[in-house]
Amino acid sequence: MKKSDKIMWSGCPVRYAAGVFGDKWCFVLLRDILLHGKRYYGEFAASEEGISTNILADRLSRLEGDDMLTRHVDPNKRSKVFYLPTRKARVLLPAFLGMMVWSTEFDDKTAAPASFAKAFRENPKAAIAWYEAEIDRVNAGLEHSC
Amino acid sequence: MKKSDKIMWSGCPVRYAAGVFGDKWCFVLLRDILLHGKRYYGEFAASEEGISTNILADRLSRLEGDDMLTRHVDPNKRSKVFYLPTRKARVLLPAFLGMMVWSTEFDDKTAAPASFAKAFRENPKAAIAWYEAEIDRVNAGLEHSC
Repeated sequence: MKKSDKIMWSGCPVRYAAGVFGDKWCFVLLRDILLHGKRYYGEFAASEEGISTNILADRLSRLEGDDMLTRHVDPNKRSKVFYLPTRKARVLLPAFLGMMVWSTEFDDKTAAPASFAKAFRENPKAAIAWYEAEIDRVNAGLEHSC
Repeated sequence: MKKSDKIMWSGCPVRYAAGVFGDKWCFVLLRDILLHGKRYYGEFAASEEGISTNILADRLSRLEGDDMLTRHVDPNKRSKVFYLPTRKARVLLPAFLGMMVWSTEFDDKTAAPASFAKAFRENPKAAIAWYEAEIDRVNAGLEHSC
């Protein structure tokens, strides 16, 4: 047993956050759900990072186990599965957007428009509210199915 | 070659952040440096998570390569090495504290006092300034050596 296996990834708030999404694929999936309006397994699989199906299944299961997502079978097509972000995932949105603004400053290959960081810095509450409304809009089309 | 190897972990701001610290050990090291006042290799090695020496060396090197830390040899004892956080690491502090507040809400084993999240929510600028001053205070004892 490695020394690190003994550590519970809770208690310390930094460890807890690291345990839930201190993994680059979890970051990408949270982006897809919180910012890109993706909900279906097939949409995540099609993201440009080219996540492999075994990693995708593992990370969706982890995020569901950590109460970040809920899993639903599409009643119109039972072979399709979609995921909705929980309140726990949504409460992370401001910190997540803060990290993105940080990235736009330091990534010299950033693809984000300068207007994104500018809008967030000038009025973070309005920027967060805009993304929240988008999440609600996408969810509204699915929640009646749950 | 896996499909995912083709992806540059830059461009998209979420991917960029994931590439720099989408790793639980990088989270822990950034906590040690930004919040716990640790600077020396030996101090990181002694953290309660019990990081192994090979992982510690790898993550310090990665964080240095990503311009998050600068590495210095202690002039008083040349076998000792210390690290200072760069501006890039320090600019991450608000988002990092935001994640911690999120953790305190959702980790039912949280060890953080309720006063931490309360202070941050009531006056985030003052909370950030307090941590910034602590970083400056710890650095001040070392910067003359650089």
